[in-house]
Amino acid sequence: MADAHNYRAVERFSLGEMSMTKHTIKDYLNGRVEVGSQVTLEGWVRTRRDSKAGFSFLQIHDGSCFDPIQAVAPATLVNYQSEILHLTTHCAVRVVGTLIESQGKGQRFEVQAERVEVVGLVENPDSYPVSAKRHSFEHLRTVAHLRPRTNTFGAVARVRDCLSSAVHRFFHEHGFLWVHTPIITTSDAEGAGAMFRVSTLDLANPPRDDQGDVDFSADFFGKAASLTVSGQLNVEAYCLALSRVYTFGPTFRAENSNTTRHLAEFWMIEPEIAFANLSDDADLAEEFLKFLFQAVLNERPDDMAFFAQHVDKDCITRLEAFVAASFERMEYTDAIKALEKAQAKGEKFEFPVRWGIDLQSEHERYLTESLVGRPVVLMNYPKDIKAFYMRMNDDGRTVAAMDVLAPGIGEIIGGSQREERLDVLDSRLDELGLSKEHYAWYRDLRRYGTVPHAGFGLGFERTIIYATGMANIRDVIPYPRTPGNAEF
Amino acid sequence: MADAHNYRAVERFSLGEMSMTKHTIKDYLNGRVEVGSQVTLEGWVRTRRDSKAGFSFLQIHDGSCFDPIQAVAPATLVNYQSEILHLTTHCAVRVVGTLIESQGKGQRFEVQAERVEVVGLVENPDSYPVSAKRHSFEHLRTVAHLRPRTNTFGAVARVRDCLSSAVHRFFHEHGFLWVHTPIITTSDAEGAGAMFRVSTLDLANPPRDDQGDVDFSADFFGKAASLTVSGQLNVEAYCLALSRVYTFGPTFRAENSNTTRHLAEFWMIEPEIAFANLSDDADLAEEFLKFLFQAVLNERPDDMAFFAQHVDKDCITRLEAFVAASFERMEYTDAIKALEKAQAKGEKFEFPVRWGIDLQSEHERYLTESLVGRPVVLMNYPKDIKAFYMRMNDDGRTVAAMDVLAPGIGEIIGGSQREERLDVLDSRLDELGLSKEHYAWYRDLRRYGTVPHAGFGLGFERTIIYATGMANIRDVIPYPRTPGNAEF
Repeated sequence: MADAHNYRAVERFSLGEMSMTKHTIKDYLNGRVEVGSQVTLEGWVRTRRDSKAGFSFLQIHDGSCFDPIQAVAPATLVNYQSEILHLTTHCAVRVVGTLIESQGKGQRFEVQAERVEVVGLVENPDSYPVSAKRHSFEHLRTVAHLRPRTNTFGAVARVRDCLSSAVHRFFHEHGFLWVHTPIITTSDAEGAGAMFRVSTLDLANPPRDDQGDVDFSADFFGKAASLTVSGQLNVEAYCLALSRVYTFGPTFRAENSNTTRHLAEFWMIEPEIAFANLSDDADLAEEFLKFLFQAVLNERPDDMAFFAQHVDKDCITRLEAFVAASFERMEYTDAIKALEKAQAKGEKFEFPVRWGIDLQSEHERYLTESLVGRPVVLMNYPKDIKAFYMRMNDDGRTVAAMDVLAPGIGEIIGGSQREERLDVLDSRLDELGLSKEHYAWYRDLRRYGTVPHAGFGLGFERTIIYATGMANIRDVIPYPRTPGNAEF
Repeated sequence: MADAHNYRAVERFSLGEMSMTKHTIKDYLNGRVEVGSQVTLEGWVRTRRDSKAGFSFLQIHDGSCFDPIQAVAPATLVNYQSEILHLTTHCAVRVVGTLIESQGKGQRFEVQAERVEVVGLVENPDSYPVSAKRHSFEHLRTVAHLRPRTNTFGAVARVRDCLSSAVHRFFHEHGFLWVHTPIITTSDAEGAGAMFRVSTLDLANPPRDDQGDVDFSADFFGKAASLTVSGQLNVEAYCLALSRVYTFGPTFRAENSNTTRHLAEFWMIEPEIAFANLSDDADLAEEFLKFLFQAVLNERPDDMAFFAQHVDKDCITRLEAFVAASFERMEYTDAIKALEKAQAKGEKFEFPVRWGIDLQSEHERYLTESLVGRPVVLMNYPKDIKAFYMRMNDDGRTVAAMDVLAPGIGEIIGGSQREERLDVLDSRLDELGLSKEHYAWYRDLRRYGTVPHAGFGLGFERTIIYATGMANIRDVIPYPRTPGNAEF
């Protein structure tokens, strides 16, 4: 059939080499391209330095790795005076030249430029919001569209991507399926937090029922809908069909928390495993976290070196210690005893310690940093401080919940074995005044081929904070959403 | 420090083997475990057949692959009469036995059971909503929490996961960074579609301004916010810092479309490449789609064989042809000529054909199926039917847009080279009456180090439909959201 048509096929052309096969600066710096090759660099100028010897040194960056490559532009180039000497930070250029071994220190390879083409200038360089001088993170948040051009936020983007990629790799190597649980939900929050309403009603003049209340039956989904706070209940249904599953997606909290640790929109990872108990869950959490941090150490030494030098000098040693450690398993009840004993010996805590409390950050950090000196999995919490779906232990007063505590941050993972016994689940629903009808589909999972199963949630941004030492969660997500802020 | 504490470490125990290292049914069926080994199967009964010779044959399934494994349970087992003979579809069991080569046909390996432990029964098997008999997809949509237990929806879940995984693998092998663009946005839809409002206001009694309008300055984000229809504008900012980036996340349309092709919530993939033009974009689309479908053919032959047998007999040959084909590049203008010529020769189209129209599905399918017989990249559309951000061509009447059309489905990808010239972009904004202030940050990308760049969007569910032949988009996402439906 291909010969039956009479149109002119579009000629395949390209800007320089075909995008997908062209080399990046990472390739050049890593020695993957032969010295002496003719190369084309496409990227942005990080800095320009002019030598009196008749050269300019351009540091060219394309995002493929932390380091830029140096291009040496001789004054003999036709546009040296008219263009090259006017290049400023983040001007876009295309440099054609020869890859050579560098004589200068600090880099192995550089490019002897034969042509420097200016692709895009920076308007008014003096007022450019991300010029080469140092800017505060507060300022850079106001230019979230430009901040990935800076050293810090470029490094954050690469580490974030590296961790994302490691999440998927870990789970696929272990036979897990990624399940896309819904974002819009008509389920309640099961106490996980305040929710955003999602609607297409005319808010200025919504339809009303006989009582004068808003009539959500006229809304898009035929009832009141919200943004999800967790994919767990949904993914449990897939776990009880396919054994090993996980979610990795955006999650929401409509809480008016203006802190360095809270976002209204963040990404969460929630694995769920069938035929598994709390101990299996703890083993999975330990193996998973170590895999993630080992991946960052292996794959992003360039960015991690930058964080260690400029953001948090301990970030590399912290990850190395984390990966090398064997996580301690500790009962909640024993943790309370240990905290009480510490208090008796003079340790000061702001919040009181007694069996039944939800541990505060100071308690968690004492346990993992001072008492154990390694990550700790705290297990079997009082039922009254935990959610309805967690499995009741035989003692009748604790549930099979766990938190993973890490030195330097405290809680990083929360999880549990789920209550798989319908009668026990129903008792809990009754006890908490939750509607069996509302959870009918979730109860079905216990009526039909139920099995012991367990899972946990890992906040992705907190993982990035732990890896990089960045202090504010708004600086590890591209476009942070917080009270009063959903710009860009 | 570890010796300073006095709590009792929790003993590590496990249900059978440690979850992460235990074998799955896939391992057994693929010959990865030595014949004669003592094995433990944990999964759900697909079917039970009783032989008069004193055996029951249990097909056991754990989601790791399409096929179940057969366990042979002799009548001599202690619970044979009391339990095994009562097992029904989706009862959960743990089988301990010996892996042997199968004498029966249809499978290479089976398990000679020495113990069959019932973990979870199915209540009232006769009214079990996903019992072993055939159910309509309509019925199964009403039990979306149970449908992944069926052959079809288990296969869909594995193919969806396989494609997801291939998306990430492709981009990482090519040096792309995954960027998590925001879900909640205060940007306009740039015409991409109706949006859902996101709010924490009391809808029954919202705050009002002097004019009586809803006062969104009192809302959570301090202004009116919505769910995103595309991450493109946001990811462009990352592209112009890091060169190769992509999004893969949920996207929303508040359109009252009750069709087999529309969802209110769906997943989309949007790569964006710097120093690239429309031709590079087309090359990327071609390489990417082929990679995805080759991955499904390589990695899910079991599920694809099922789809070919029960859902769409052409699905495997369609993908094989797709992967083997060289995509045709065709100008929009030439496509119109070809359609007019076809009409002149007697081809009937419901919708009129003339230069300037947005092609209808019938036109697209004629081009790709009848005229060319291979995938087609249609390029350079009239500017009046395309978005403001697409790059103006030198002819002044077309823009550098492209659609990828595939036999059997029509449009599967839409993309464009983006307008990187500030003056041209501004003219387009003026022409369309769009606010330069509203797009100030997007315009900044053209003021500071702009470069030619391009990208496209691929609807993930449509990709799954194309791969599997499933007819309704509600059946390829775990929990579909459509007008009047956001259950579970």
